[in-house]
Amino acid sequence: MSEESVYSSEENKINSYVKEGDLAQLVGMRHAFHLVHIQAGQTVHTHRGIIKHDDLIAKPWGSQIFSHMGSPFFILKPSIADIIRTTKRNTQIMYPKDIGFILITMGIGPGSRVIEAGSGSGGLTQALAFIVGDSGHVYSYEKRDEMQKLAQENLINLGLEKRVTFILQDIENGFGETEVDSIFLDIPNPYDYLPHVRSSLKSGGFFGTILPTTNQVIKTLVELRRNSFAFTDVCELMLRYYKSEADRLRPTDRMVAHTGYLIFSRKIHHEEEQIREFEELKE
Amino acid sequence: MSEESVYSSEENKINSYVKEGDLAQLVGMRHAFHLVHIQAGQTVHTHRGIIKHDDLIAKPWGSQIFSHMGSPFFILKPSIADIIRTTKRNTQIMYPKDIGFILITMGIGPGSRVIEAGSGSGGLTQALAFIVGDSGHVYSYEKRDEMQKLAQENLINLGLEKRVTFILQDIENGFGETEVDSIFLDIPNPYDYLPHVRSSLKSGGFFGTILPTTNQVIKTLVELRRNSFAFTDVCELMLRYYKSEADRLRPTDRMVAHTGYLIFSRKIHHEEEQIREFEELKE
Amino acid sequence: MSEESVYSSEENKINSYVKEGDLAQLVGMRHAFHLVHIQAGQTVHTHRGIIKHDDLIAKPWGSQIFSHMGSPFFILKPSIADIIRTTKRNTQIMYPKDIGFILITMGIGPGSRVIEAGSGSGGLTQALAFIVGDSGHVYSYEKRDEMQKLAQENLINLGLEKRVTFILQDIENGFGETEVDSIFLDIPNPYDYLPHVRSSLKSGGFFGTILPTTNQVIKTLVELRRNSFAFTDVCELMLRYYKSEADRLRPTDRMVAHTGYLIFSRKIHHEEEQIREFEELKE
Amino acid sequence: MSEESVYSSEENKINSYVKEGDLAQLVGMRHAFHLVHIQAGQTVHTHRGIIKHDDLIAKPWGSQIFSHMGSPFFILKPSIADIIRTTKRNTQIMYPKDIGFILITMGIGPGSRVIEAGSGSGGLTQALAFIVGDSGHVYSYEKRDEMQKLAQENLINLGLEKRVTFILQDIENGFGETEVDSIFLDIPNPYDYLPHVRSSLKSGGFFGTILPTTNQVIKTLVELRRNSFAFTDVCELMLRYYKSEADRLRPTDRMVAHTGYLIFSRKIHHEEEQIREFEELKE
Repeated sequence: MSEESVYSSEENKINSYVKEGDLAQLVGMRHAFHLVHIQAGQTVHTHRGIIKHDDLIAKPWGSQIFSHMGSPFFILKPSIADIIRTTKRNTQIMYPKDIGFILITMGIGPGSRVIEAGSGSGGLTQALAFIVGDSGHVYSYEKRDEMQKLAQENLINLGLEKRVTFILQDIENGFGETEVDSIFLDIPNPYDYLPHVRSSLKSGGFFGTILPTTNQVIKTLVELRRNSFAFTDVCELMLRYYKSEADRLRPTDRMVAHTGYLIFSRKIHHEEEQIREFEELKE
Repeated sequence: MSEESVYSSEENKINSYVKEGDLAQLVGMRHAFHLVHIQAGQTVHTHRGIIKHDDLIAKPWGSQIFSHMGSPFFILKPSIADIIRTTKRNTQIMYPKDIGFILITMGIGPGSRVIEAGSGSGGLTQALAFIVGDSGHVYSYEKRDEMQKLAQENLINLGLEKRVTFILQDIENGFGETEVDSIFLDIPNPYDYLPHVRSSLKSGGFFGTILPTTNQVIKTLVELRRNSFAFTDVCELMLRYYKSEADRLRPTDRMVAHTGYLIFSRKIHHEEEQIREFEELKE
Repeated sequence: MSEESVYSSEENKINSYVKEGDLAQLVGMRHAFHLVHIQAGQTVHTHRGIIKHDDLIAKPWGSQIFSHMGSPFFILKPSIADIIRTTKRNTQIMYPKDIGFILITMGIGPGSRVIEAGSGSGGLTQALAFIVGDSGHVYSYEKRDEMQKLAQENLINLGLEKRVTFILQDIENGFGETEVDSIFLDIPNPYDYLPHVRSSLKSGGFFGTILPTTNQVIKTLVELRRNSFAFTDVCELMLRYYKSEADRLRPTDRMVAHTGYLIFSRKIHHEEEQIREFEELKE
Repeated sequence: MSEESVYSSEENKINSYVKEGDLAQLVGMRHAFHLVHIQAGQTVHTHRGIIKHDDLIAKPWGSQIFSHMGSPFFILKPSIADIIRTTKRNTQIMYPKDIGFILITMGIGPGSRVIEAGSGSGGLTQALAFIVGDSGHVYSYEKRDEMQKLAQENLINLGLEKRVTFILQDIENGFGETEVDSIFLDIPNPYDYLPHVRSSLKSGGFFGTILPTTNQVIKTLVELRRNSFAFTDVCELMLRYYKSEADRLRPTDRMVAHTGYLIFSRKIHHEEEQIREFEELKE
């Protein structure tokens, strides 16, 4: 999954086949997912039978294969969203709909230097590591030892561990980095750490957080104002899937109603009073 | 905006100040946006007065400055979402909420090779060019000369034109590239071009499209099935903003109700019949 | 539940206590519902123990009582929405959110004469019977014998059977009534019966239907135009519940994503061509 | 619009024609609405020309007529939702989607005795008066003289003024009625009046309110608990309209994002402590 130069036509062909070391997903009936690292001699055990890695190697990506019980599977290269959805987790993990919007809104891409806390199971960490490329870097804070280990394991699995520095530390003493492009806090009380965010974020940089309750949003808005952040947006994204049948196109019966309120804000090089004036003028 | 190696602390400091050649946004009252390329000697004309670029150079990002009429502005580094929102356009432009979800769902990131058609005003093109980094590439098809020129201009403005090959051509004869990672069609009739998509997409690769009407979705679902695509998802994203006031937290009065239905699907290395069987089994 | 004259203060007091013949709901832990007809000597069997009707009679509405196992329950007068939610059913039943909007949009209230088909389990029939009062009437068509029986049983349970005429008949031969105020079709193919709807509906009257798929909506729109209906609205209602906790106010995790598309239209006293012209003019 | 006994076939025929005293809506191009009381000799002035009432009388409902400028209009009997949408107003008026859900959830129908405050422009008052029939009654409190007058005027216009008692009074001293079936407060601070609500509501009765901000919802939840209300639901309804074109079925571009959070709760005949226990048990 690491960043490669634009492939020659020959290389592209080679990349069209499953080979050792690849990260693959096996998709069976009812869209059951299995994320596997291809290694000669290994096997995958599914509810619908056993599949040998040797039977996968050299198959074109997108091929159909069968378990020893005759159950059909397709072998596909997982997208970063697929990986996040199937990542090993101990905690609630962020949803791709929110992660995609966070990345694009905060302008996180190749070359970005980003702090996140907490690492949790490493769902967002994986997306950040993927998107910052070899030229960017992610600093991921977590205070619980076992959570950090899981996040690290998930990054190693993805082959992107070099792009992430994991720091086992409570953020109450702040972050070791300065002048980073953006900071994302996925913790219940981001409002307690905004002075630290301010110290480590470059002027004009992006702060983001996701919070389940309106009470937390209200507290965060108060503290953002107090800490000279401005251009604050609060929003939520609702994702509705449809049954993908041409003759009966309709939404699914049920959906996720709420993952969290997203807050985005920017560090402003200015005193609180002037920002307040500005915000009031604009209304 | 090009990809840089992880900065030394010194370099980070330098990047904290506005300098010639930077792409900047001036944000005035009521969140009025101005996207400007900083050049010594130049001026910006706003509804609330004139600002000299010379007065911006060497200011810390996030600073407040004033027009000749005394109207306050902040100078900020635009995120890719900010850029897309303010891009010069002749056509309906895709929304950041949709673009973020497209990128993450289709696994587009540093190193990806992507085809898009049509270029339109280059909104999605900018996001793709930003995210594929120096090691990826975007092939952007457009049949209308004046649209292509606008898209190119927008990419040059962003400094990312090297990452994009613009092709002035109707896609009815297919695409010149093969084995690309993903293809996104932002055209009214994607269902007419799926054999071409199939020819240029690597096996297992991602196809995506966005369509305003259910009629178009229905037609596309029929053709995806006929052309051996599988794992098709249809969905829509609703983005709701809140008034970001701590003592009156509530959604805004009105919102965008619909930008389009998103369809994602994967090229499967298999005959139609077997896929049909598989899809039926899974229900 | 029948319509009564405005109560004297004395009568109001009497109505504040549970008495024989009342329809009551017992609400236990986790909001488990039991709809019961109060009759001396009877018992209710719940998962959390037995309750004697005799222990309920003469209790103030809203009282807490306990099962023989000591499990707490409240006794409440059910609203029409409560009744619909707990109604005995063989079929998908319409949701209160949709029913409330249907009634108010189609102007159904005391005195209205309404046709519905099919009766189904009688969910909508109950709401219609409740709202048309003693001075209105509901004509409910159903072709399946066992469904009709269930709907009738549900109306008797509610004490509103006199307001409804049940007709066991396929509607392919039309309706026996004429000049009704409104007709609601809760069937999969309303588009096949619009000439019949037209024959029985008063000029200017309201037609309504609810359909799960976009394909059905499309077909219905075509036929409405062909049959001289106009002022057609298509809409959907999304209901999102919140966890009602003051210190953690947030939406529930999941919600119903789709019950159906609602279509409302009016019978116009006019030839098709003139309506088409009119509709085109208005754009 | 008053409640009539079920019509004979003859009477129905008569009711199919516009006659003096009727409340009618003229619907012109772009769905422009005019609500008119039919009176011989009168005229309606629209942006698209003048229409004489005499030209409307004896026309079948649903007929097309033309203004003196040749602009087409349809004459329709307005539904209660149509009336609310076009009601003369000084204030934000409640939306039919919310009113329909309030009526059905709170079980308001023929025979109900209901208190509302404040009357505002009388939007909800009209719906309540319509639905309670001749056998129910509405007590509508308002402290601003000019608002009350407008609400009264709107009720007279509808011919339903006998079903409503208007009380010009601040509710800080409570309501004069007792044992009412339900109380709806459409005021910014319902949390200040819950003891009064409790005094006037019958045991087990329904309380409802609509509030724009989460802060108000939070305060109300605290006070409901303190005042022995239970079975509290908080929810919001989102209504999405579609363009009703068979060959381009799609949602409208924009929609109302928020009208208010609805809260429903029931007066419980019980001490606060026991309710708290109960609510905690149920989780």
